[in-house]
Amino acid sequence: MSDFKEKMNEYISFTEDNLRKYNAYSESMAAQKHLIEAMNYSLEAGGKRIRPVLVYAFCNALGCDYRKAAAPAAAMEMIHTFSLIHDDLPAMDNDDFRRGKPSCHKAFGEALAILAGDALCMLPFEVIADDKSLTADQKIRLVSCLAKGAGREGMGAGQVIDMENEERTDVDEANLRNMYHHKTGQLIAVSCMMGCICAGADEEKIRAAADYGFKLGLAFQIIDDILDVTSTTEELGKPVGSDEEENKTTFVTLYGVEKAQEIANDITEEALACLDIFGNDPFLVQLTEMLLKRKN
Amino acid sequence: MSDFKEKMNEYISFTEDNLRKYNAYSESMAAQKHLIEAMNYSLEAGGKRIRPVLVYAFCNALGCDYRKAAAPAAAMEMIHTFSLIHDDLPAMDNDDFRRGKPSCHKAFGEALAILAGDALCMLPFEVIADDKSLTADQKIRLVSCLAKGAGREGMGAGQVIDMENEERTDVDEANLRNMYHHKTGQLIAVSCMMGCICAGADEEKIRAAADYGFKLGLAFQIIDDILDVTSTTEELGKPVGSDEEENKTTFVTLYGVEKAQEIANDITEEALACLDIFGNDPFLVQLTEMLLKRKN
Repeated sequence: MSDFKEKMNEYISFTEDNLRKYNAYSESMAAQKHLIEAMNYSLEAGGKRIRPVLVYAFCNALGCDYRKAAAPAAAMEMIHTFSLIHDDLPAMDNDDFRRGKPSCHKAFGEALAILAGDALCMLPFEVIADDKSLTADQKIRLVSCLAKGAGREGMGAGQVIDMENEERTDVDEANLRNMYHHKTGQLIAVSCMMGCICAGADEEKIRAAADYGFKLGLAFQIIDDILDVTSTTEELGKPVGSDEEENKTTFVTLYGVEKAQEIANDITEEALACLDIFGNDPFLVQLTEMLLKRKN
Repeated sequence: MSDFKEKMNEYISFTEDNLRKYNAYSESMAAQKHLIEAMNYSLEAGGKRIRPVLVYAFCNALGCDYRKAAAPAAAMEMIHTFSLIHDDLPAMDNDDFRRGKPSCHKAFGEALAILAGDALCMLPFEVIADDKSLTADQKIRLVSCLAKGAGREGMGAGQVIDMENEERTDVDEANLRNMYHHKTGQLIAVSCMMGCICAGADEEKIRAAADYGFKLGLAFQIIDDILDVTSTTEELGKPVGSDEEENKTTFVTLYGVEKAQEIANDITEEALACLDIFGNDPFLVQLTEMLLKRKN
């Protein structure tokens, strides 16, 4: 196995161990057993674990033991999972499947899915606040970044733009970029910043990590747009062609597959340039390239 | 105006000013204008503001300027508001009205109501983390208390117990007490603890404040049960008799109005006893009595 793959597997397995630990069920919680089951169902549904991997990778690139970032890394995956559970709800995107499995509300009912999402909004802050290896100042900075990145100025704004775009026929590139910046870019950028904060990095590095994250998030979304027309349902784990069916404006509907791929390549190059200050850390470089070339 | 009423008005108006300030809209947020409107709609819907008042009252009872607790007090009202927005959703309690006004999803649609609730989960943590008058240690303690009180071991558990009780015919007093302890008691107890934390209180006082809060929360819920059968829709601002209609088990269905009132009186006495360590602060004593004798 390559060094990259080995490190990747180590990060993912450390994340999954921690998610299980932080959301463990104990007998004193019998009354809320189903809530914790619903939370774990969605936390265990897999996915690429990109956000925690980025937290670790930036921490590690700065010469710090990545395990110090256990709490914020798990927190990012919880917040991401919460957003997927609520996005899939009938009143939102109304998706019955997520990563090839019934979505949370299909498996547990709508009310419990809403509550599981809500509980996954709270647990990240508890996990960060109760962590023993970070200082109070670090933890407060992490809490602030996470709340802003997921809230009304971050991901929350992206979700509203996405929702309101469904009613619009005049969505242009600027709108789309703004939506992706908020909906995907914010949590990716916060993940990168968090790794730096755990490593005690200076402001210049934290800013560079955020820049990288926003660019990576944008490229990631454009590639999602491309995969929706070029992939298969099997590869993707969800129905392809859904953007066209829903009349969604994407980089592909605006520019076609080829041009969209060029744009994604250019933005990926810009993201890679942000890694200069991190000594072009080999793991981060390979991760960036892997995400650009992904098939799902 | 009595000293009590004057102080009460001061606390409520300071809370409402801060809610407006913390959720202010600026032109850079044009894309998420409707999200912020939906959040403010529910934040401004009024209510008793009991949670922020308790934060201030405990801070003040310990000889500390209550304005130091501006951030956690607003945070408690935001979390409470988020829980009401999600509770009212069609998949949850399906309530079209809240405090005499259309509920958030009736006014803004279901998707935006879900997102407004979600954003009101994040803003409290941002507001606490970015506060300038508390220490990092105080802020981390506040974040931890809030996340636990609202999450899977706190209010979240209470909501699941409440939901699952709808399917049960064997709800007894122990179950009901457990549900009220989590669903209402937790956030009330956290409010009382927060006031103490802001004032730099010792652990003994923080524990006494939590005890008081749990008892007050339980008495508060039992009185809710009573008002549902003895009040009018006008006084209550929501339909009366809904517990019976929904076949809900309450202290009234278990014991009748008179016995339920006795239980509420006894628990209120126990709550008052917890105030001993706070020198039986007159404002807190009057607040407790006011809540016991309330008509809505």
